[in-house]
Amino acid sequence: MGVIKLKNNVGICAVASVGGKKEHDGPFGCGLDEFCGDDKFGQKTFELSEAEMTKRCFSHAMRKGGFTERDIDAIFAGDLMNQCTASSYGLLPFDIPYIGLFGACSTMAEALMLSALTVDGGYFRRAAATACSHNATAERQFRTPVEYGGQRTPTAQWTVTGSGCAIVGRGDSPVYITEVMPGVSVDFGVKDAANMGAAMAPAAADTLLRYFEETGASPYDFDAILTGDLGREGLALVSELCEQGGLRLGRRCGDFGVMIFRPDQDVHSGGSGCGCSAVGVAAYLYDEFCKKRMKNALFVGTGALMSPMSVAQGQSIPGIAHLVRFSSGS
Amino acid sequence: MGVIKLKNNVGICAVASVGGKKEHDGPFGCGLDEFCGDDKFGQKTFELSEAEMTKRCFSHAMRKGGFTERDIDAIFAGDLMNQCTASSYGLLPFDIPYIGLFGACSTMAEALMLSALTVDGGYFRRAAATACSHNATAERQFRTPVEYGGQRTPTAQWTVTGSGCAIVGRGDSPVYITEVMPGVSVDFGVKDAANMGAAMAPAAADTLLRYFEETGASPYDFDAILTGDLGREGLALVSELCEQGGLRLGRRCGDFGVMIFRPDQDVHSGGSGCGCSAVGVAAYLYDEFCKKRMKNALFVGTGALMSPMSVAQGQSIPGIAHLVRFSSGS
Repeated sequence: MGVIKLKNNVGICAVASVGGKKEHDGPFGCGLDEFCGDDKFGQKTFELSEAEMTKRCFSHAMRKGGFTERDIDAIFAGDLMNQCTASSYGLLPFDIPYIGLFGACSTMAEALMLSALTVDGGYFRRAAATACSHNATAERQFRTPVEYGGQRTPTAQWTVTGSGCAIVGRGDSPVYITEVMPGVSVDFGVKDAANMGAAMAPAAADTLLRYFEETGASPYDFDAILTGDLGREGLALVSELCEQGGLRLGRRCGDFGVMIFRPDQDVHSGGSGCGCSAVGVAAYLYDEFCKKRMKNALFVGTGALMSPMSVAQGQSIPGIAHLVRFSSGS
Repeated sequence: MGVIKLKNNVGICAVASVGGKKEHDGPFGCGLDEFCGDDKFGQKTFELSEAEMTKRCFSHAMRKGGFTERDIDAIFAGDLMNQCTASSYGLLPFDIPYIGLFGACSTMAEALMLSALTVDGGYFRRAAATACSHNATAERQFRTPVEYGGQRTPTAQWTVTGSGCAIVGRGDSPVYITEVMPGVSVDFGVKDAANMGAAMAPAAADTLLRYFEETGASPYDFDAILTGDLGREGLALVSELCEQGGLRLGRRCGDFGVMIFRPDQDVHSGGSGCGCSAVGVAAYLYDEFCKKRMKNALFVGTGALMSPMSVAQGQSIPGIAHLVRFSSGS
């Protein structure tokens, strides 16, 4: 139980990513298909901006793959907004079956996992996995309006303005999805909503420990083990928790939340939001495989399953982490 | 494209449902495994009550099926709460992979569809599909606090306090899932958040028209075609829209939102919420198959993909409808 090996050649046919100015200025910036200098994408509200960004991202992925709506059998999508409206409104223009997910920042991994399983089983010819977040929508929903200028704590992460999409299908690909593993919710009692990394790290460690125990693999078998998005605080914790469980991740372990912004971009503990790892996969990881700089990588998408209401009511924050294994050979 | 036929004997192994007082007093009341007279389930907040209800419902399903946590490979779950916290907190005690969904009131159909596909493909031995809603949490999140005593319009629906769960697996079953069909989001421009039936009816009609066109089946092939939850207003509209498309549903078409409460229970247009059709499937439909009163039925789970924010910003309300075909023979 746990790790699922795919039976067929299931891989990524096309990727796309769209981001805001800060994301364009960051290390993944050159991998974006489009960015917007004012993060508004020509819309009058931030919520519509996030939806528009998602729409553009999905359109880029279809165009780059040479696909029309008839070629994609389903979209697995989600975001951080209440009732996931960025995805449902953004992807509304497309005449494609829509399967809404909520996995908080683990959404991209969840969407890739479900896309891979349903394509591998022959239920869909191709499925799109996509996730997005927007700094301004997340700030006013989860924290305070941006205009309020609230002081951020050192452990806080900066919600990425970005959308990433990967179209999954059968056949030859530079990046195959060879294994997936859904995560179990884990709650270590963290109540600080400004320290998501600490809330999600136990889930990432739980998934990684289960994966390596079940497969008998070693972290040295991988060019990279990428969590996302734990940030600096969470990344340090996941290494520590894995080591306590007898698993030394070593220097191969990185985190999309740490990688998406430069240290001087003033984001404190790193990036976060559904768009963070979605952009990481689309704008960076896929390219690493295409350029043969990576042949084997684990992506562990991490999410914090709380709401502002559950935090206000004094509940602790459960985390979850879904795993996807990418490989250059099927 | 569209309708997916399952390859193996995939059916429902066990069901459970838990509800509030009003649901217990309604037509599905005798099918509930447990109900709570004050809707609080011993908790101090309504949000915790909803989570506790979901936990109890899932526990009942496991107990009734004779399963332990080791027998269930994944839970597909979702609800209406911001960031789906009723499901994530309620199902946290179980050491089972958790896959969060957001399909609004279509969640039970979405969960059944994904459970069936992943079990049929052999990726999971058994998967649980569950969804819930709570009148008091939905009222204060989507409308106004209950204490405010706001006047409801005639087209308004009453959010069901209920949770339903179905464990899906291979092998002999009184109810097989033989076909599924994911829905496409549809937006007819309805902006009245107190008329969800009108917002969701076009999606239900779209899915039904596609299904009957693709399969060549007739509504007379089914003992029941059950939407959920359109309410009286939406049910009338879906019949009208289907008729415009050349499909006469006839008297076989019913709606869980209409069925879950008696006409004298003062719920205006009917019941709604993720728990409505989840309870309908678990407390009513499954039993109809067990008692051989039904042999073939379509369940079309309908959801309205808006948020209070999108409505406040003047956006119209997109709907979605996922289809699941139940059959007594595989």
